[in-house]
Amino acid sequence: MTKARAGSFQTAHGGVLTPAFMPVGTQGTVKGITPTQLRAIGPQVILGNTYHLGLRPGDELVASLGGLHKFMGWEGPILTDSGGFQVFSLAGMRKISEAGVAFQSHIDGSPHFLSPERAMEIQANLGSDIVMALDECPPGQMERGALELSMARTTRWLKRCRDFPLAPHQGLFAINQGGTHLDLRRDHLHQILELDAAAPFQGFAVGGLSVGEPKELMNATLAEFVEELPVNRARYLMGVGTPEDLLFGIEQGVDLFDCVLPSREARHGRLLTSRGRINIKNARHRAADLPLDPACDCYTCRTFSRAYLHHLLRAGELLAFTLNTIHNLSYTVGLTRAARLALLDGRFPAFASSARENWNTEEP
Amino acid sequence: MTKARAGSFQTAHGGVLTPAFMPVGTQGTVKGITPTQLRAIGPQVILGNTYHLGLRPGDELVASLGGLHKFMGWEGPILTDSGGFQVFSLAGMRKISEAGVAFQSHIDGSPHFLSPERAMEIQANLGSDIVMALDECPPGQMERGALELSMARTTRWLKRCRDFPLAPHQGLFAINQGGTHLDLRRDHLHQILELDAAAPFQGFAVGGLSVGEPKELMNATLAEFVEELPVNRARYLMGVGTPEDLLFGIEQGVDLFDCVLPSREARHGRLLTSRGRINIKNARHRAADLPLDPACDCYTCRTFSRAYLHHLLRAGELLAFTLNTIHNLSYTVGLTRAARLALLDGRFPAFASSARENWNTEEP
Repeated sequence: MTKARAGSFQTAHGGVLTPAFMPVGTQGTVKGITPTQLRAIGPQVILGNTYHLGLRPGDELVASLGGLHKFMGWEGPILTDSGGFQVFSLAGMRKISEAGVAFQSHIDGSPHFLSPERAMEIQANLGSDIVMALDECPPGQMERGALELSMARTTRWLKRCRDFPLAPHQGLFAINQGGTHLDLRRDHLHQILELDAAAPFQGFAVGGLSVGEPKELMNATLAEFVEELPVNRARYLMGVGTPEDLLFGIEQGVDLFDCVLPSREARHGRLLTSRGRINIKNARHRAADLPLDPACDCYTCRTFSRAYLHHLLRAGELLAFTLNTIHNLSYTVGLTRAARLALLDGRFPAFASSARENWNTEEP
Repeated sequence: MTKARAGSFQTAHGGVLTPAFMPVGTQGTVKGITPTQLRAIGPQVILGNTYHLGLRPGDELVASLGGLHKFMGWEGPILTDSGGFQVFSLAGMRKISEAGVAFQSHIDGSPHFLSPERAMEIQANLGSDIVMALDECPPGQMERGALELSMARTTRWLKRCRDFPLAPHQGLFAINQGGTHLDLRRDHLHQILELDAAAPFQGFAVGGLSVGEPKELMNATLAEFVEELPVNRARYLMGVGTPEDLLFGIEQGVDLFDCVLPSREARHGRLLTSRGRINIKNARHRAADLPLDPACDCYTCRTFSRAYLHHLLRAGELLAFTLNTIHNLSYTVGLTRAARLALLDGRFPAFASSARENWNTEEP
């Protein structure tokens, strides 16, 4: 009996069918991809980034131009993160207090302040469908006592986020922390659910995993914890996106995922296929007159040979980034779509084991 | 009475309606643009580059993969240059003799030899529709005596090119030289036409202009000389591509143009519009909620605001290169298409003066 689930929920910009991998469009664009190409890839939701867009071009400017959907030409659902992860990553350039995080822009060093209210304000201005609460993002191996203090602050910040008047069409997700400590995760979830009882969140995110802790600990945490999240709300595992991790997450009952990895790896020529990973720059692909992945129906695989993709990347051509990204995103979005169909058809366990088996097959 | 003309000729990959601007796809890709996007831009012909493709990925490899059309996913006509212009530009890394040009690869310094026969062999392997003869490419201000010697060699090379067995579907263009000396151009054309009498060339190119000479001299040469080219064959002005130069060339009776400028300028944010040039990076476009060119129906202008394009380029996003290139190529290809329609409708002079007038209008 699998814990995996096929679900759906509604947003002002369309329904979301899950499980779903959400491509990342940090600066108002999925790197190298037009909205038309993105529609063909078919993600249910894409991400925008509060930190980056708040600094440049500025959330007020985006609002004055009709919001992020119109600005970037994407009519589907958009989730915006809170900016917290980026701000907490600015080591040496930020100062945390109960009020929020003072930080310097990575662009020009100018001073800024990200509070729960400001994170909500930016996301309100961007007009995203799914809004993430601002949380403290503790490092992967934070000491237990410090983690408890951090979680308590995240809860207080969550309350402040919830009190901010978002637009009627926007839904707020709460973020659960607690590292790989199951009891802390449960404590924190309990705190979140107390707030939820008053006014329900649209979904629940599992944060603070895939941040440097051993993979076994992450997986053990997910295996125990995901099923404890409310069954009737969306579950979002943040920052996870390898095929193996997606499949494992789906098996634990996760609905939503995001990660920059598939697109970043694509730009370096590291491509995902139904037969396992490929580095398209390798000499063995120089004259290969076959598609990247014969099982894939993305534009790249339908149109070009591996030899062409090899040539483009070797020659440093811009088109390499576009075509490789189209494929890796199609592969990753397609994996979650296929998982959904398998779930609806009652053949998910067979699908999962077949997928894993193919990844371990050497190419002929 | 204008010398401008609307013409057409056939290739194995479709008819070519002229006047036509041909976008440059140096390394088997128009930089940053998929074949699907290219089709929407609608060029009659695109260029491939013999020098670059011969070195990487290699013309034999392209042939083994079915030719350049299949390799790059472009079903329309392709013109390949001879590689001469690039090889002659390798100052200090090439040595010219009657046999051909010995040169070192810009990629790895390896030694190569480009002869008329090798230039034909590469283009035969690439399988382009229009093949350019190998010519000596003299610098813009070459002394008259040296120019005469160079032209004579170009004629001998042309004969060797013509003797090479191309594929049946391929047509050979001869290249006329002579700098801005009308009498030399005429002498050289006379030599070419002697060869043409035995076996006709598909077209005639005007080479050696737009290579550093004063614009007035180039224009004066074109104004006198273009009409002396055979009326029933395609006329190709090489390396020319600003709106002003295209219009002037069309007015002199030129049919085909190519230039990297529209796409290169696009990548730097210097964009062509019906109201004149725009630098999209300028602060005045930061919040501009209007299309790049309201008179343009390209994907970029239909979909995005100037503010978005400004943001993308400021943020260094790959999509900026793609969207800006789509626009500048659409603009440039569209200018030659509009000129053709105006010619067919008998309103070309009005079209030309209206185009010039709009370029000089300041934006409101």
